[in-house]
Amino acid sequence: MEKIRASVIGASGYGGAEAVRLLATHPQIDIVHVTADSQKGREMSNLYPNLRRYVDQTMIEADAEAIGRDSDVTFVSLPSGKAMHMVLPLLEGGSKVIDIAADFRLHDASLYPVWYKFEHVAPTYLGEAVYGLPELHRDEIRDTRLLANPGCYPAASLLAILPLIRSGKTQTSGIVIDAKSGVSGAGRGGGGGFGYAEVNENLSAYSVTAHNHTAEIEQELTAAAGGDGPVRVVFTPHLVPMTRGILATAYVPLAQELPEAEALALYDDMYADEPFVRVLHDALPQTKATLGSNYCDVTVRVNPRTQTAIAIAAIDNLGRGAAGQAVQNMNLMFDLPEATGLAFPGVFP
Amino acid sequence: MEKIRASVIGASGYGGAEAVRLLATHPQIDIVHVTADSQKGREMSNLYPNLRRYVDQTMIEADAEAIGRDSDVTFVSLPSGKAMHMVLPLLEGGSKVIDIAADFRLHDASLYPVWYKFEHVAPTYLGEAVYGLPELHRDEIRDTRLLANPGCYPAASLLAILPLIRSGKTQTSGIVIDAKSGVSGAGRGGGGGFGYAEVNENLSAYSVTAHNHTAEIEQELTAAAGGDGPVRVVFTPHLVPMTRGILATAYVPLAQELPEAEALALYDDMYADEPFVRVLHDALPQTKATLGSNYCDVTVRVNPRTQTAIAIAAIDNLGRGAAGQAVQNMNLMFDLPEATGLAFPGVFP
Amino acid sequence: MEKIRASVIGASGYGGAEAVRLLATHPQIDIVHVTADSQKGREMSNLYPNLRRYVDQTMIEADAEAIGRDSDVTFVSLPSGKAMHMVLPLLEGGSKVIDIAADFRLHDASLYPVWYKFEHVAPTYLGEAVYGLPELHRDEIRDTRLLANPGCYPAASLLAILPLIRSGKTQTSGIVIDAKSGVSGAGRGGGGGFGYAEVNENLSAYSVTAHNHTAEIEQELTAAAGGDGPVRVVFTPHLVPMTRGILATAYVPLAQELPEAEALALYDDMYADEPFVRVLHDALPQTKATLGSNYCDVTVRVNPRTQTAIAIAAIDNLGRGAAGQAVQNMNLMFDLPEATGLAFPGVFP
Amino acid sequence: MEKIRASVIGASGYGGAEAVRLLATHPQIDIVHVTADSQKGREMSNLYPNLRRYVDQTMIEADAEAIGRDSDVTFVSLPSGKAMHMVLPLLEGGSKVIDIAADFRLHDASLYPVWYKFEHVAPTYLGEAVYGLPELHRDEIRDTRLLANPGCYPAASLLAILPLIRSGKTQTSGIVIDAKSGVSGAGRGGGGGFGYAEVNENLSAYSVTAHNHTAEIEQELTAAAGGDGPVRVVFTPHLVPMTRGILATAYVPLAQELPEAEALALYDDMYADEPFVRVLHDALPQTKATLGSNYCDVTVRVNPRTQTAIAIAAIDNLGRGAAGQAVQNMNLMFDLPEATGLAFPGVFP
Repeated sequence: MEKIRASVIGASGYGGAEAVRLLATHPQIDIVHVTADSQKGREMSNLYPNLRRYVDQTMIEADAEAIGRDSDVTFVSLPSGKAMHMVLPLLEGGSKVIDIAADFRLHDASLYPVWYKFEHVAPTYLGEAVYGLPELHRDEIRDTRLLANPGCYPAASLLAILPLIRSGKTQTSGIVIDAKSGVSGAGRGGGGGFGYAEVNENLSAYSVTAHNHTAEIEQELTAAAGGDGPVRVVFTPHLVPMTRGILATAYVPLAQELPEAEALALYDDMYADEPFVRVLHDALPQTKATLGSNYCDVTVRVNPRTQTAIAIAAIDNLGRGAAGQAVQNMNLMFDLPEATGLAFPGVFP
Repeated sequence: MEKIRASVIGASGYGGAEAVRLLATHPQIDIVHVTADSQKGREMSNLYPNLRRYVDQTMIEADAEAIGRDSDVTFVSLPSGKAMHMVLPLLEGGSKVIDIAADFRLHDASLYPVWYKFEHVAPTYLGEAVYGLPELHRDEIRDTRLLANPGCYPAASLLAILPLIRSGKTQTSGIVIDAKSGVSGAGRGGGGGFGYAEVNENLSAYSVTAHNHTAEIEQELTAAAGGDGPVRVVFTPHLVPMTRGILATAYVPLAQELPEAEALALYDDMYADEPFVRVLHDALPQTKATLGSNYCDVTVRVNPRTQTAIAIAAIDNLGRGAAGQAVQNMNLMFDLPEATGLAFPGVFP
Repeated sequence: MEKIRASVIGASGYGGAEAVRLLATHPQIDIVHVTADSQKGREMSNLYPNLRRYVDQTMIEADAEAIGRDSDVTFVSLPSGKAMHMVLPLLEGGSKVIDIAADFRLHDASLYPVWYKFEHVAPTYLGEAVYGLPELHRDEIRDTRLLANPGCYPAASLLAILPLIRSGKTQTSGIVIDAKSGVSGAGRGGGGGFGYAEVNENLSAYSVTAHNHTAEIEQELTAAAGGDGPVRVVFTPHLVPMTRGILATAYVPLAQELPEAEALALYDDMYADEPFVRVLHDALPQTKATLGSNYCDVTVRVNPRTQTAIAIAAIDNLGRGAAGQAVQNMNLMFDLPEATGLAFPGVFP
Repeated sequence: MEKIRASVIGASGYGGAEAVRLLATHPQIDIVHVTADSQKGREMSNLYPNLRRYVDQTMIEADAEAIGRDSDVTFVSLPSGKAMHMVLPLLEGGSKVIDIAADFRLHDASLYPVWYKFEHVAPTYLGEAVYGLPELHRDEIRDTRLLANPGCYPAASLLAILPLIRSGKTQTSGIVIDAKSGVSGAGRGGGGGFGYAEVNENLSAYSVTAHNHTAEIEQELTAAAGGDGPVRVVFTPHLVPMTRGILATAYVPLAQELPEAEALALYDDMYADEPFVRVLHDALPQTKATLGSNYCDVTVRVNPRTQTAIAIAAIDNLGRGAAGQAVQNMNLMFDLPEATGLAFPGVFP
């Protein structure tokens, strides 16, 4: 079988570089272009020394037209608000597009100014784009040419809450998601307060009440709730002194009694055949168990004193929260076995 | 003025050793005994090499009678369930007692079997003991000879929530406290899963729905709520890859509209004259700002979309969460200026 | 082709568990037994949660006879001094043996009491065992049934120094190796001073002048020096607050002038065809570039002011320093392509 | 007694901010100005939140003339090459000057182009400036108005090696200093490769053969060696994933036999009355024992196999390696008890 030609726009960032790492050992992929405007002319493996012997490309400036022509699939891993300017030439060139940022995640264009502070320039694509959480939209993913890869926090949060919200046994308001992320989620470079000396041995919340991932979490939960919605959540992210990993702890008020065993059964049912979700019964998720991999570990506990379900999910923010998820989606979009190139465990300890 | 003779029972643990560190530079204190049954005969400064030149004591086995006779005040920093066996000889010997563990925090003896899995052997002292959060009980602290030092999580959680709950503008159910702690909270030694290799670059929840600090949080919040209670909380602790620090993020459903500025004013009012609470307006608490100190940094934000107040507090779990708080209480119990020996900032970065 | 049946004795430790991780995705391997006396009856994936879905074995007690019969190859990952008691039944059962500890590394039995404080009980095997550094002994490795896997520090130190010492242009005395290791090198569990709170934000030397890895470093360097030896080294290990990684910085006094370009050429020559050594010219090795992989990154610089060559090597102590190296050796011992199951880059960042 | 008026130029950097922290609780100091051109107008305690309640100054732009007039002492904590432009107006204004950077450390102006890549613009002051290591130059420090504070690596390296080199029992060539530093040594901000995600769980050497601290180490060791010199060293710094701390491991070839007990006695003798050097006999220095303090922990071991002394020193790079040392020097320059404001132990764990 001929290999799929893949390019990565924004390969110098952590998400893009993780995509390159995964594609470099994917048996069906030829990497064509890796771009990074700020690093053009530099060898990819100079910036990411783990990739020596695996990637010999030099980073070039992004030319969406050329890349669209040369590629069967293009991963766009740029700050939100950039990919929407590239989608037309990429698609017209013949490349499928996987946007690792937020430009095509929200169906309602009017939410972009609210949550992302920009007007969407390509709103017609919002209807075509598919939200790439396979556990929710596997069939649509197979058929799309424009894939909106979920945000890192939403990936963990949705996988944590979906079995509960689908059951109809919870309330749709009063939901709290307290999420914690490693620092790589803030992007490469370490500027702006992400230097080692200040992040190490430190812990804080940020973007309280205002994080833009709130929008896609509510969009997908509302859809999953059927007519019970709309679902509203309080979402608070925290910065944790570690490089990779997201832990989402979700507090969901129950609408009716739900014994813990029944709650766990909801998770077993929804995720029984999922290649990358592991439901834990006797242990709690820990981020390190997923490090470097595409797995999401998830569980639920019920606090009968307060009639609250506590759902917890752990992922690698660059894996299941970004590039791993993107490669899983690519596999679906090209009719490859879904786990191709991703069937390995995380690194522990 | 003659110096106060102080002893520390359980000086080999992190909380006890932090008490020794603070007492060693306290201008009104002479350290008399430091005990650690498992380390008897070892120099304190061999186990805690920062204390070289400051502490020349050798750790001895704990003899409550002798220590009670020799000391004006004794800090007991042992696992919960131990101090209750020592309180009688210590008090009879003439020493005031500051228990850094949980043996005297709960007024209701019947809660010990529920939350701590032991029967209390000295329930008569539960009425006499004062819960040592100065912001709540300063006057009683001055007059007691038996001080129950707050738990690390409760110290942060209560300072975060109290101004809200006292205002009467919040609900008393549906409160969620998502707390995160550095590893020193688990005690010295690193056994049982707290080895560096597994804690580093890892994050997880623990004791979900069952952490025993829940009891004292509810006790104090219920009292603070006046007749509105009882207050019930969901409390979930997390283990974060750092040595020191607790961040408590509390989600409190509002009972009526509360603009953010008014919410902040509640904090300014309650903590205006407090020597060790700093109310932040334009920044969010971060644990590192308190490292090594007795400060609690606290703020509140309001999410009007969901009618929720989000209160956040940061402390050093060994400082404000244990030994620093204990020394502050000692100052009150001996009519010293409240900040004596504690008037220094944290170490940053 | 029928799969090779592999067992791991001592699978609960970090080295053994890393072997299990690598074997679990090795295309030619069936894992037969995983043993851990202290954890018998526990599922491997409960202790190493990354392995869920990959390893369904329960850890059993080690029975060398049974394991020898059931296995084509057995990895022994126990504290030094244990494997020598098992080698006979394992070999007699028909299994090849790869010892990840030190029991067969030294050719001279009289060195064990000196460096390891035990008498060797199976000295006749010391002549048969092959020291498993493929860059030195590839052909012998192919033919042996008893493989002594190099120590973590020696793997890095030897790969750093060998091209220099082979050149004959250096002195054979006055060599200093200052090595730094992540904490996983101290083994699982975190007891004895390796708890997170004390290792984090800390750095120290240990085993100064007395580390037992000195012996195998000198053995292999002396052999490599031809008649110029014996080679003596000062070896000082340090404990660094990170989980994985060894950096060895070696200072080698020159016997004659050696321009830096010529020094680098020595490395290019020796390692040109090596699958797992990457010679860096324009960058310095960093441990993170090798994390989770079997690569060794190495370079050399020359300080003409002091006539010293400074050679630096980075590895993952559990990868190239233990289990990765062991799997590479296994591939050689079973005539598999040398990189089978190891052809992936490290995780970065 | 009237308080000393102190200003800090470059207060936004880690070294400058640590000086502000120490001065803020120094009983004889009034802080007058804190400057930071890039942060002017920002409150010091906004950037360094530990300083809330201790420092209410706003950072201003540096005006050397005005600061010189307003201050009795000025700490200059700028990148090397800046202080030499300010020394004249500061001194003429009447302020004593403590330069925390390198502008006045080297007596020989011709070494600046070699090691620092700039021509010195105020070479006449090089003769007047005193190198501020009290253990070497206490008397001259008392009398100077221009103090060159030692570099962080030299402080540790010199305190490690001086007793040996003074004894005349070592060689003066073949000395290797392998030094390891926490990341705060690279300055605030985290740009240029010091972001958390890449420094964490990573370790590397840098500036191999070329670090500019080599010059002052050789200058002071040569002077200490009397006529035996010149002393030449190989100095290699490493970046360690921790915020604070330097460990210097020095390898010194012996010129004659030196039993370990005699070597230790050299240290006991030299440092017997030193307020901030602690000689360890039965333990090895660890950086955490000095964190936040002005202490240097030091020891020596002898390797008779190779006739090498191994001397090890640990400091807090921002304490004894920068601001703590500077305050100690200030105390000497103003005839205050040498430990004023510095008499507290480090934070451990």
